[in-house]
Amino acid sequence: MTKLARKDILQITPYLPGKPIEELKRDLGLEQVIKLASNENALSPSKKVVSAVKNGLNQLNRYPDGSCYYLKRKLAERLGFNPANLIIGNGSDEIIGLAVRAFLNPGEEIVVARPTFLIYEIVAQIAGARIRYVPLKNLRYNLSSMADAVTKKTKFVFIANPDNPTGTYVTEDEVRLFLSKVPPGVIVYFDEAYFEFANFAGFPNTLKLINKRNIITTRTFSKAYSLAGLRIGYGLANKEIINCLNRVREPFNVNSIAQIAALAALDDRQHLRQTLKMVKEGKKYIYKELDKIGLKYIPSVTNFILVDVGKKTRVIFNKLLKRGIIVRDMRAWGLNKFIRVTVGTMKENKKFINALRGLLHR
Amino acid sequence: MTKLARKDILQITPYLPGKPIEELKRDLGLEQVIKLASNENALSPSKKVVSAVKNGLNQLNRYPDGSCYYLKRKLAERLGFNPANLIIGNGSDEIIGLAVRAFLNPGEEIVVARPTFLIYEIVAQIAGARIRYVPLKNLRYNLSSMADAVTKKTKFVFIANPDNPTGTYVTEDEVRLFLSKVPPGVIVYFDEAYFEFANFAGFPNTLKLINKRNIITTRTFSKAYSLAGLRIGYGLANKEIINCLNRVREPFNVNSIAQIAALAALDDRQHLRQTLKMVKEGKKYIYKELDKIGLKYIPSVTNFILVDVGKKTRVIFNKLLKRGIIVRDMRAWGLNKFIRVTVGTMKENKKFINALRGLLHR
Repeated sequence: MTKLARKDILQITPYLPGKPIEELKRDLGLEQVIKLASNENALSPSKKVVSAVKNGLNQLNRYPDGSCYYLKRKLAERLGFNPANLIIGNGSDEIIGLAVRAFLNPGEEIVVARPTFLIYEIVAQIAGARIRYVPLKNLRYNLSSMADAVTKKTKFVFIANPDNPTGTYVTEDEVRLFLSKVPPGVIVYFDEAYFEFANFAGFPNTLKLINKRNIITTRTFSKAYSLAGLRIGYGLANKEIINCLNRVREPFNVNSIAQIAALAALDDRQHLRQTLKMVKEGKKYIYKELDKIGLKYIPSVTNFILVDVGKKTRVIFNKLLKRGIIVRDMRAWGLNKFIRVTVGTMKENKKFINALRGLLHR
Repeated sequence: MTKLARKDILQITPYLPGKPIEELKRDLGLEQVIKLASNENALSPSKKVVSAVKNGLNQLNRYPDGSCYYLKRKLAERLGFNPANLIIGNGSDEIIGLAVRAFLNPGEEIVVARPTFLIYEIVAQIAGARIRYVPLKNLRYNLSSMADAVTKKTKFVFIANPDNPTGTYVTEDEVRLFLSKVPPGVIVYFDEAYFEFANFAGFPNTLKLINKRNIITTRTFSKAYSLAGLRIGYGLANKEIINCLNRVREPFNVNSIAQIAALAALDDRQHLRQTLKMVKEGKKYIYKELDKIGLKYIPSVTNFILVDVGKKTRVIFNKLLKRGIIVRDMRAWGLNKFIRVTVGTMKENKKFINALRGLLHR
């Protein structure tokens, strides 16, 4: 096997997703399980989405529209772009892979923060690229050091903004300074999967830079829009970059139900408002309770929170699992003291806090 | 742009899918359009599938099960394998790309027929591989010449069986002879997207070879199971190969609705029988009518037929379009005299035949 495989893939540690609810039920024989592990939206998709999807089910025998014509048109109108500035992906994750396959040659380099979302380095490893890691500073991206890490061989800098797993962000001023230091031949990739939760003054508007330099910005319907199960996200870039991404895209990468659901979700501003309210109130509650318990946490502009549980990460993660609560053990990211908890419904947040308090007081 | 992009992607001619129904309606202002262009199943998915899918819609806010646990288990049981021999893809097309990314180094070679399904050469071009083309012989794969085209640099031989776009197949004896000539370090990839239509004595059973050598066999839910819109297919290979494919797979490549639908589709043998009956009767009708009209065609073991329309391919394709009938113009495959028509419902087949007769008699 290993003789046949490409050398580059042998060192890859495959990405380990949050434990699915079904899997925990199977493994531990539990009936009640809540998942606060994958930064999903605790709200089901809106009725408008479900109803639109139901109307599409009789057409599943037909291939999807490979060009995502209607969705690109709607997003383009909404965001003030041309559809040729857009690409739709099987989740925004897929677009990370497309970018690397279209632009990154073996031996070239990417710059990433450490730790951050793991997919950037995985796809770059597959492509045979060299990865330059820049440590976070106080659990925030250090854009100044990231600019310094750029060499003549650098093809991409990846910036998760807001960042996962820290929940922190880089500001408009920091991005402006960073871009002034990075040569135009470096593609700066802004992964804005949590953008909707961080849409406030001072948060960088990367879209206005799309037609000025080589930037890719991706967003997703998986988080704020409750469509993680369908796999759909989008990217914006100048037309030349989009043209290249389309060359390496599978012809039918985005399923038809995802296209229908995303179109309907964009029209349901009520669902989005409800989501943002739930997350805001949930964070306020969790912060307050963690303060009472005496645990530190990293203030977050997303729908998840890093909680500092000291030296007991593994123990607490496992004990929460046994109580039917899935969070994320952050040791795989080198954040050894932390668990990451997604903000759920208030009922779920309370269940988490009560379980955590119980564990610590024993 | 082209300065930044990988050289390998610049020569790619992106795959051009069959024209979507909606697109033709938009372009020509037509209200009634039938699509016989993409070898889709003319039957909608079964009621069992639709009902199972509806039950899953409230969970779309959750990520899919990245391991496709239940579907792999069910397919493994059905086919007599271990789940570790299986991989599920975002359509079986995706698995072609995964195989290439896991195994094919720049400068290595693949052997493909010419013409055949275009995706093999596209993904190999992206990987920077050299492509050795072996012409069809009487519109059938010439496995003997394909074995001769294997060199020390060959990593893959791709065999679409049955073949698209010809509708022909290679026999069990031909495959046995071929494999006896090909060294074990070459991965033989059997793309069996149309397998269910060709499940007769003498058609190769490649699955029994999976654990004996380096073979990948992929099949799909897009054709016989009416799920093209959802993007789901599967591959079988030895565990070492599957392990490598998983290393380059995105963690959530298959959406959750597709997993639910595929599970339900496997239980609906009635829908499959109905499909096979429709295709069998449809082919019989189309053959008979083409004989009457005096047009030649290639007898097919699939759900589509190559029809020899002489020198008028473009004209006939366009005139059918104007009548709201989408077929495939085969000039892009170098099959200049042919259109490819998918077997539809009997009503659609009649509409196609009547339109074709009308065009030729003018």
